[in-house]
Order: sequence, then C-alpha cells, then structure tokens
Amino acid sequence: MRPFSERLSAAVRGTGSPLCVGIDPWPDRLPGTGDPAARAEAFGRAVVAACAGRVPAVKPQFAFFEQLGPAGMAALARVCAAARDAGLLVIGDAKRGDIGSTAAAYAAATMGPDAPFPCDALTVSPFLGPDTLEPFLAAGDRTGSGVFVLLRTSNPGSAAWQAQVAPSIAAWIDEAGASRADADGLSGVGAVVGATHPGALAEMRTKLPHAWLLVPGYGAQGASAADTRAAARADGLGALIVSARAATFPSGPWGDDVEGTIRGLVERTRAELGEAWAG
Amino acid sequence: MRPFSERLSAAVRGTGSPLCVGIDPWPDRLPGTGDPAARAEAFGRAVVAACAGRVPAVKPQFAFFEQLGPAGMAALARVCAAARDAGLLVIGDAKRGDIGSTAAAYAAATMGPDAPFPCDALTVSPFLGPDTLEPFLAAGDRTGSGVFVLLRTSNPGSAAWQAQVAPSIAAWIDEAGASRADADGLSGVGAVVGATHPGALAEMRTKLPHAWLLVPGYGAQGASAADTRAAARADGLGALIVSARAATFPSGPWGDDVEGTIRGLVERTRAELGEAWAG
Repeated sequence: MRPFSERLSAAVRGTGSPLCVGIDPWPDRLPGTGDPAARAEAFGRAVVAACAGRVPAVKPQFAFFEQLGPAGMAALARVCAAARDAGLLVIGDAKRGDIGSTAAAYAAATMGPDAPFPCDALTVSPFLGPDTLEPFLAAGDRTGSGVFVLLRTSNPGSAAWQAQVAPSIAAWIDEAGASRADADGLSGVGAVVGATHPGALAEMRTKLPHAWLLVPGYGAQGASAADTRAAARADGLGALIVSARAATFPSGPWGDDVEGTIRGLVERTRAELGEAWAG
Repeated sequence: MRPFSERLSAAVRGTGSPLCVGIDPWPDRLPGTGDPAARAEAFGRAVVAACAGRVPAVKPQFAFFEQLGPAGMAALARVCAAARDAGLLVIGDAKRGDIGSTAAAYAAATMGPDAPFPCDALTVSPFLGPDTLEPFLAAGDRTGSGVFVLLRTSNPGSAAWQAQVAPSIAAWIDEAGASRADADGLSGVGAVVGATHPGALAEMRTKLPHAWLLVPGYGAQGASAADTRAAARADGLGALIVSARAATFPSGPWGDDVEGTIRGLVERTRAELGEAWAG
C-alpha cells in the first residue's frame, strides 16, 4: 500500500477540501430506534455515504463504539471497512498508548487494511515515552499507515501537563517525520493540535514541516473556520480539520432522509471551511 | 456497591497477598488450537479459575483482546464478568484518556458492574489534562469503581516525558484522593508506578498516602520481589503488584492441565512475593 501521507495528499487535492468528518455515535442523538449498536452502525454508514467523494477522510471515535460493548466494536469494524471501500481515508481516533509489546498489539488491532478495525491512521498518546511510539511507527511503515501523536489537544485543561512536554514531543515528531518525508515533504508521522490554540497551530506548522496536523476543536468547541487556516501550508496541504457534531447532527429532528441530512451538513461545513480559507 | 478502595483492602487482607495477575493473551503463547478469540477466552477463564480465592485481583490487558477484533472484545467482556463472578477484582488495563464526553464514554464502557466490559477499576492516562480525568472520577464515585492514573510506567523511556510532569500529576492524585479516603485512609484514586523505579515507589508511597499503587515491571521486566515492598504501607495495604508472564505462562509446553499449570505459577509467584515482603 502507498504511504499514508501520499494517499492523504492525493485525497485532499482530489476533493479540494481538508475536512475530516468525525463519526461520534452519541447514543441519545442517533437517528432511528432499537438496538443501539445497530443504530450506531447505520449512522456510521450514512456518514460514510454522505462523505464519499466530498471529503478526504472520516474519523471514527472508538470510545462511542466501545461503550456499546462487543456489538458496538463489531459495528466499528464494519464502519471502518465501509469507509475504506468508499474511498475515504479512516483516521481511527483511539488515543492508544502502552509499552512495547502491548503497543504492538494496539497497532495490530487498527493499522492497515488487514487489521480487524482497519484504519489508515491512528491517534496515539506519547505519554508513556518515545520508545512506546516506535511499535506504531513500525506498523505504519509496514502497512502504509500513519499516526497522529497527541501534542496539544483542544480541551481547556490541555495546558496543565501537555504544554510542558510539547516542545520535546514536537522535536521527536519532527525527527521521525524527516526520515519518512515523501515527494511533497510530508510524512505519516502527524500531530494532533487543537484549533482552540491558533497560536500553537501556526507555531507547529513551522516547527513540524513534515507533519500532517489533525485539528479538532473547530465548530462546537469554539474555534472558527478561519482559525484553522494556520494549520495548513500555503498550498493547502498538511492539515486535516475535524468536524463531528456540526457536520453530522442536525440541530432539529432527523426527518426521513438521514443520509441526505448529513450530506447537507457535510457540504455546508466543507463550504464554510473553503470560503474561510480562500478569504 | 461499596467503594473500590474498601473492597480492595478486604481482598488483600482476605487473600493475604498483594498479587494482581495480568491476563495478557499473547496469541502465539496461548494453549490449545483453533479460533484465537476462543483460545484467549479459555485462557482468561483458566487464569480466573486459578486465581480465585488466592489473589485479590486480575488485570486483563485490553490490547491483546482488541487485536483479535470484535470476537476478542466479546471474549474480554466474558472474562471480566467471569472474574467478578469468581470474587476477583478486575483492573481493566486500557490506559484510556480523552476529552470530556469521550472520556465519559470510555468510563461507561468499562467502569462498574453494569458496564459492557465490567471492571472494578480502570487504568487511565492523564496526558490530556486534569479536566479529562474528572469524568472517570465521576463514574467511579457513581459505581464504586476506581482509577489508576499513569504516573511512572515501567518502560525504559518513561523518564522522557512522564518524569517532567509527574510531580504535578502526583499532586492532583493526592488532592483527588484525600477527599475520597476511606476508614483505612485509602481511596479509589490510585497511581501506576513501575517496579523498575524502586526509588519512585518509596517516594510515591510517601507522597500519595491515600493512593493504591498499581506496580508493573516485577519479574519479566527486571524488578525483584523485594523491590516491590516499598510500594506498600507497613500494614501491607496500598499496593497491587502485577505479574503477567511469570504468573500465567509456563517456560515449557502447556501439558494437559492448563488451569493446574497456571495455578502452580500463581502460587509460586504469590509465595515469592510473600517471602520477599516478610524477609
């Protein structure tokens, strides 16, 4: 499989958008009735259908499937596969991290087309140390997958402990990405930097020239579409801007056409980002 | 349900041991043949049967089940339930962490008897910030469950980023535990501190008087039984010492009696700890 960074650049160019649509099946906001895992899967499949060809990537949030138990995890596996089949890149938002052999098990669970939860990239936590990120990099190199290392998340408390170690983690990301840079200068070693820290976006865009930045916090969490522009290079590559709630949940009732409703929200979000970035 | 810290103190007193047996179903070391998820479940059930009444707790490692896909997660759910039915406390080793509502979803997935993966306590990562730990504490208060916050893990690289923020995280753990202390002075807000840092064990035992310390790294990772003594109070409470490989996998072939083989390993490990702590 071609490296993740090359496939992502092609997808951003092909769709003309940096939008990554989150798949967060909140139990009390899902359309339909009945079995929660079946509803989560139907919702995930509707998001996939609404996104195909319009945006480069989707980001299923593992926690919302895990809370539905084994049936929820089976739904997650099928939604990941459906997204890949629809030509979307799948960013598994699992924030996994553990020591050596255990990190390798998490990577085997999620990274690459043959994994049981097949993702093109995985969000990973660096907290346990640089040695614990190596198994994820190795799996990425082997399967053409990427990682997004948590660097500055979008929550209010992210300054408390992340900010102290962010410079050192950023240096590690830069070094790991430099040796893996593709023809566009980008690599599969990315970083998560919240849109709620616009200054950090601009700083990390400069300090991490080879990294894709995965940017949560736009919309429901308060950052504007214009705030996110700083995450991308001048040519528009290098950033994936996440929207989940605004791009997938209507403010009113669902109505009969769930996929059409989501398609409208995705197109509106995509246009909002496009206009803000062009302006 | 009674608070986790009270139940854990009773279990340590009742079994006379601080041993927490890890359930790490490495695919290539499992007994039997055939479907990997079925073999992982049979192994987990054999560990549970071998541990019941002999040790206070077991610690299933989520990653090894997750890599087996949805069927592996179904096996995990059943192994957790079987352990609780056998009177063992279940420490879910998932190292979860995410922002607000997502952290709440991970807590709903795992914490308490009614969760789909029913655990008595969960390992959590503090990296995203103190606000992201609150949903886990709230779920623990509601369901009588506990958390073990990653503080100094047992891997070689743990100094790189954890060590810098460990004092601040320890202060947070101490404050969260102080208001939740039970009659023994212990709380459900624990910490993970590796046995590979004996100095840190003694330091954290003093600095975190209300915290149970969950101590990995004994045995296969190089720390001795005597090294772990510093994690417990003089009365023997306050520490859970983890052994996975040495307590569950024979050095030779499995033979016919898998449960008996594991029981022998658990008893040997339990005795080794008991002698080292008494000496």
